[in-house]
Amino acid sequence: MSEAGARMSAEIAEQPSVFDAVLARRAELAEVAALAAARRPRFALLAARGSSDHAALYAKYLIEVLLNLPAGLVSPSTTTLYGAEPDLEGVLHVTVSQSGGSPDLVEATKAARGRGALTIAVTNTPDSPLSAVAEHSVHIGAGEELAVAATKTYSATLLTLYLLVDAARGGSGESVAGLGELAAQTLADSADGVAAAVERYRSVERVVTTGRGYSSATAAEAALKLAETSYLGARSYSGADLLHGPVAAIDSSTGVVAVTSRGRGGEAMHDVLAAVRDRGADVLAVGSAAGDVPADHRIELPATAEEVAPILEILPLQRLALGLALARGGDPDQPRGLSKVTRTR
Amino acid sequence: MSEAGARMSAEIAEQPSVFDAVLARRAELAEVAALAAARRPRFALLAARGSSDHAALYAKYLIEVLLNLPAGLVSPSTTTLYGAEPDLEGVLHVTVSQSGGSPDLVEATKAARGRGALTIAVTNTPDSPLSAVAEHSVHIGAGEELAVAATKTYSATLLTLYLLVDAARGGSGESVAGLGELAAQTLADSADGVAAAVERYRSVERVVTTGRGYSSATAAEAALKLAETSYLGARSYSGADLLHGPVAAIDSSTGVVAVTSRGRGGEAMHDVLAAVRDRGADVLAVGSAAGDVPADHRIELPATAEEVAPILEILPLQRLALGLALARGGDPDQPRGLSKVTRTR
Repeated sequence: MSEAGARMSAEIAEQPSVFDAVLARRAELAEVAALAAARRPRFALLAARGSSDHAALYAKYLIEVLLNLPAGLVSPSTTTLYGAEPDLEGVLHVTVSQSGGSPDLVEATKAARGRGALTIAVTNTPDSPLSAVAEHSVHIGAGEELAVAATKTYSATLLTLYLLVDAARGGSGESVAGLGELAAQTLADSADGVAAAVERYRSVERVVTTGRGYSSATAAEAALKLAETSYLGARSYSGADLLHGPVAAIDSSTGVVAVTSRGRGGEAMHDVLAAVRDRGADVLAVGSAAGDVPADHRIELPATAEEVAPILEILPLQRLALGLALARGGDPDQPRGLSKVTRTR
Repeated sequence: MSEAGARMSAEIAEQPSVFDAVLARRAELAEVAALAAARRPRFALLAARGSSDHAALYAKYLIEVLLNLPAGLVSPSTTTLYGAEPDLEGVLHVTVSQSGGSPDLVEATKAARGRGALTIAVTNTPDSPLSAVAEHSVHIGAGEELAVAATKTYSATLLTLYLLVDAARGGSGESVAGLGELAAQTLADSADGVAAAVERYRSVERVVTTGRGYSSATAAEAALKLAETSYLGARSYSGADLLHGPVAAIDSSTGVVAVTSRGRGGEAMHDVLAAVRDRGADVLAVGSAAGDVPADHRIELPATAEEVAPILEILPLQRLALGLALARGGDPDQPRGLSKVTRTR
């Protein structure tokens, strides 16, 4: 048996070269995007579960802001449990699934296609049941993922979704050029900050993650990664929701991870973090604007366009989850009961 | 100063009479529903924050299953932070807000109306800024809520949304006739079960709540209620998502609250609960099908149509949050830092 967490660690480290590989397939993705754009969809639906659901949340922001198209996340069970049959003519239906094997996503995608939607599967398993039922299929190309917690497939999915949306608006991927190199720089430069955060958070009982706008997807994914690898009571809130009520549960025994990149989302975090620090929480700011917000500790990341920042933001947070799992005596490569494919219907 | 939790306790107890009051205004709600149905919307968007966001999730299921209309939850920040301007002609845009005062919801609703959406405000404050900007306004009529954690406004919002959707499909509210009485029965009959659950969970560090279908809204609201009153690391997962990854973080020190009512959602929980119990969690099943699933303890509720079960399911869970807050030395009426109105933009 290999060292605890060796698989997850290796797959986190692979991400710079995975990004290069995804970027090399931009033209292929642009073809599918052009087909979708030509149909002039009236709105977009995104179906996913687990980490992919957070990638779908990121895509929802991209579609609404960059394409000016309303977008919503699908609850597959309205179809699979309750047999809902909405008219989906002229609707773009994107299913995001690393494995491409979750029966409820396959069933919901098949049903959506039957009701008139333009269906696109975004998956890391091109010969999967999901690819077979969708009209178009896009390969993430992250390579096989052996660790049970998704890392490289999550970030590669974000980059793939960005390239699709960017191509649909006629872009040429300018904001993500050189992203592989920036990812390598992110991993190298954040190592000390992550190690310090592991030391501080190894004994907390609760972690709250928070972000706004595009970065709310990062906060959600970071909380899931912490919860599923570290046995931590970790949950995420949009910065806006946090002030509404859950801030009441934050005190000096809570670690707060705030995702703050340059742009509107990061700016909107100032008030949130001031309130959280007033309550005594230990605040770790992560992102290209980490230096601009009230925080106790910071992991600063390279600057990018705001809409692509989530692709880098998650990298040190994956390492934080890995480090906390190991520090707390677990093995994230062998969490009991974790399956790569959701079998529920 | 009154007894700790006295306000929250009183407002929980008011719910049977609040339901009667909402039901008495069915004709008024049916008028607004008829106006919306006459426009034959192509899809529905729901905007909300906090507890109201969970009511919106419930409405999303109702709209998709009972009206066969695709529905999505709005991220207000795509408008308020990023200035997205999607075409919303022919779209039904429902904003749910107890206070009617959250600036970002007001701004997003105003923008949606300007872009062609049929806007309906559902609020407990009829003369609110939200009501002023929406084309139609529906009053929840729960009476003033003094406790900071929403209880009666949440359940009254669910009932109001159900009556709107039911009227839009030509229904006469048959499934909720007598719901006030069922609520009184629920509160009376569940008191012992809640007290026992408080004793068991007062020392756990983490609570996970879970449900499927309509009841996933109950699970989300219960986790928020626990987190904001009890300083517990509580989070919710759809039963489907739980098996995918987070089940790895469940062990014998985790309390799992499973919402299981009669119908498809409750049936789909069997596999989920078997997996969770295998991991040693202490499982509390709450709902009209609590007796049918693998669980350690049960709070059985009166049977209803599945689509209205969430209106009753939340009642014992509000009392559980209140009881745990008191047992852990807190005062849910005075949580530090909790504001009734989200001021973020």
